[in-house]
Amino acid sequence: MTTSFSLAVVGGDGIGPEVTAQALAVLDVVAPAHGLSFATTDYDLGARRYHATGETLPDSVLEEIRGHDAILLGAVGDPSVPSGVLERGLLLKLRFALDHYVNLRPSKLYSGVATPLGDHVTSRGDIDFVVVREGTEGPYVGNGGAIRVGTPHELATEVSINTAFGVERVVRDAFARAQARPRKKLTLVHKNNVLVHAGHLWTRTVDAVATEFPEVSVDYLHVDAATIFLVTDPARFDVIVTDNLFGDILTDLAAAITGGIGLAASGNVNPDGTAPSMFEPVHGSAPDIAGQSKADPTAAILSGGMLLDHLGFPEAAAQITAAVEADITERSSTPRSTEEVGEAIASRVAGGVPVG
Amino acid sequence: MTTSFSLAVVGGDGIGPEVTAQALAVLDVVAPAHGLSFATTDYDLGARRYHATGETLPDSVLEEIRGHDAILLGAVGDPSVPSGVLERGLLLKLRFALDHYVNLRPSKLYSGVATPLGDHVTSRGDIDFVVVREGTEGPYVGNGGAIRVGTPHELATEVSINTAFGVERVVRDAFARAQARPRKKLTLVHKNNVLVHAGHLWTRTVDAVATEFPEVSVDYLHVDAATIFLVTDPARFDVIVTDNLFGDILTDLAAAITGGIGLAASGNVNPDGTAPSMFEPVHGSAPDIAGQSKADPTAAILSGGMLLDHLGFPEAAAQITAAVEADITERSSTPRSTEEVGEAIASRVAGGVPVG
Ligand SMILES: CC(C)[C@H](C(=O)O)[C@@H](O)C(=O)O
Ligand SMILES: CC(C)[C@H](C(=O)O)[C@@H](O)C(=O)O
Repeated sequence: MTTSFSLAVVGGDGIGPEVTAQALAVLDVVAPAHGLSFATTDYDLGARRYHATGETLPDSVLEEIRGHDAILLGAVGDPSVPSGVLERGLLLKLRFALDHYVNLRPSKLYSGVATPLGDHVTSRGDIDFVVVREGTEGPYVGNGGAIRVGTPHELATEVSINTAFGVERVVRDAFARAQARPRKKLTLVHKNNVLVHAGHLWTRTVDAVATEFPEVSVDYLHVDAATIFLVTDPARFDVIVTDNLFGDILTDLAAAITGGIGLAASGNVNPDGTAPSMFEPVHGSAPDIAGQSKADPTAAILSGGMLLDHLGFPEAAAQITAAVEADITERSSTPRSTEEVGEAIASRVAGGVPVG
Repeated sequence: MTTSFSLAVVGGDGIGPEVTAQALAVLDVVAPAHGLSFATTDYDLGARRYHATGETLPDSVLEEIRGHDAILLGAVGDPSVPSGVLERGLLLKLRFALDHYVNLRPSKLYSGVATPLGDHVTSRGDIDFVVVREGTEGPYVGNGGAIRVGTPHELATEVSINTAFGVERVVRDAFARAQARPRKKLTLVHKNNVLVHAGHLWTRTVDAVATEFPEVSVDYLHVDAATIFLVTDPARFDVIVTDNLFGDILTDLAAAITGGIGLAASGNVNPDGTAPSMFEPVHGSAPDIAGQSKADPTAAILSGGMLLDHLGFPEAAAQITAAVEADITERSSTPRSTEEVGEAIASRVAGGVPVG
């Protein structure tokens, strides 16, 4: 018996399509052994379409995408498009419209991977944590505006919106994840000594939900202090729950200390299943190296693994993670093309020897 | 001839008074040779006063403080006071009321200082940059609120307010600082692909002011990417200009990579001189080690140096920096008390041999 899933594929801009192609190739290799198959629909969205038609994400396309079981996304953003147009009009529109309220970003330092941190830091313990970043609220809501633009009297606002409903559901999800991990530890990161209204909502919510998870130990860090610990004692973290903007910042830093954004995967998850979840590398479109087969597809491939896990195939996901881990650990310093990395990981998944 | 300056001293909470005492002692040692003297007024503000009277910063006290030439602040915040009360009611009230629009935070990795970064990163070049953090706008304005607090329908907002007036003055200050430095490089950090209204105001302002400083080279980083570069290539930075919240986050990370917040000084500067500027260590009140003579007063002492520089005594300031640098470089691993560190730096300033 084969279970077939429909995947909406949004390669997007820059290196997005290249790395997504490798992620799909690896998915196709892992699928059969688990009785899985994928039917993909490609969506031409991003800078090219914007220039051709002025569209970022037409409603009809959004509705088509919604009909799929999951979404695989490459990267969004191009210097030829004003900053924010594609990010807000395409990437964030997908996250918000499809209610991706859990933006899941695991960070793990694999052995042998280069990190900017010194040995005295990395030897303090295993770096293996996950950031549960809220995905549908906070300063990302796009609520704000400007008056008298371009004059000396310009005033621009950005409004962070936070609701008990929105905070509680992501906090509960984060507690459940902490509960399921060996260390059972949750750290709330916010800035509740300055952003008192939103911060206290987060703090009170964590305190309340904590009573349902008595085995989970909880602490709190201001976002500024959290960045310090991420570089001085990252092993202290297990599950971090935080708001949309703080999560954006912390996960880039987390990626940096665990080998770079070339390795960092993410899932924009709708845990309620009311719309498809979306999986994408944390890195951007890297227009400077686009089309040169220089991009590392590892993060995209790992995102494919997260997609499998989300669809209910943890063993298949683990196969991808193991193949990536082996590939990373045994990487030589000889540069490989995007395709070579993809093929090497694919053949490890297939049980073969590394190619290229 | 002696020039006398009046200093308002706000030791504040936790380790604040201890470290401030050492900063004052060092100022007193350096002063005479430069024809300087200080008359200090102590202000009892912080948790103790809040518990005793319910006050954080009465208007009459604010007006008294305003009458001084400069302010030396220790630290604000105590676990016995709800998070935000002292921060917003005292520290931020001072910064906003006294129009400290340039929050100046230098970061320098002195030789011999322990950093979490590996040699392969620190050997890429000298880490020596300054963050010009906007101090009177952004998400720190305290504009926001909450309705239905404590119910499942709670909604909390935080509004970031940004004006052309406020952004331009800090950007111009940052350009002038970049112009005066050997590398003449300015990096704007924001998140203009998401916070498009505020972000584009910042971007356009930097572009406009750049025409007045043709020798300064300018680049832009999203805040998430900036955290990556701070740990992978911090030597790339010279002057960073950024908003209030991003500046808060980046400067803690900057402090972490250059030896920790025990060494990080800051100035809340009113460049127009319409009110006294305020100098304080970047670290917090560290209530867990308060009263135990364990706090490192170096950051407070360096903040005293920034105060001297601001008052127009760069040589006196340089004497403090040099004494601190010598002390840091020659530190042994034997722990010293707050007083011992202060005395060691003071006697280096006095030209004597290190004490303790
Ligand atoms: C491209 C950008 C809008 C996005 C974000 O800020 O969320 C990216 O930085 C990320 O972390 O996925
Ligand atoms: C204590 C707090 C309000 C303050 C800030 O957020 O500005 C501190 O973190 C700082 O950086 O000076």
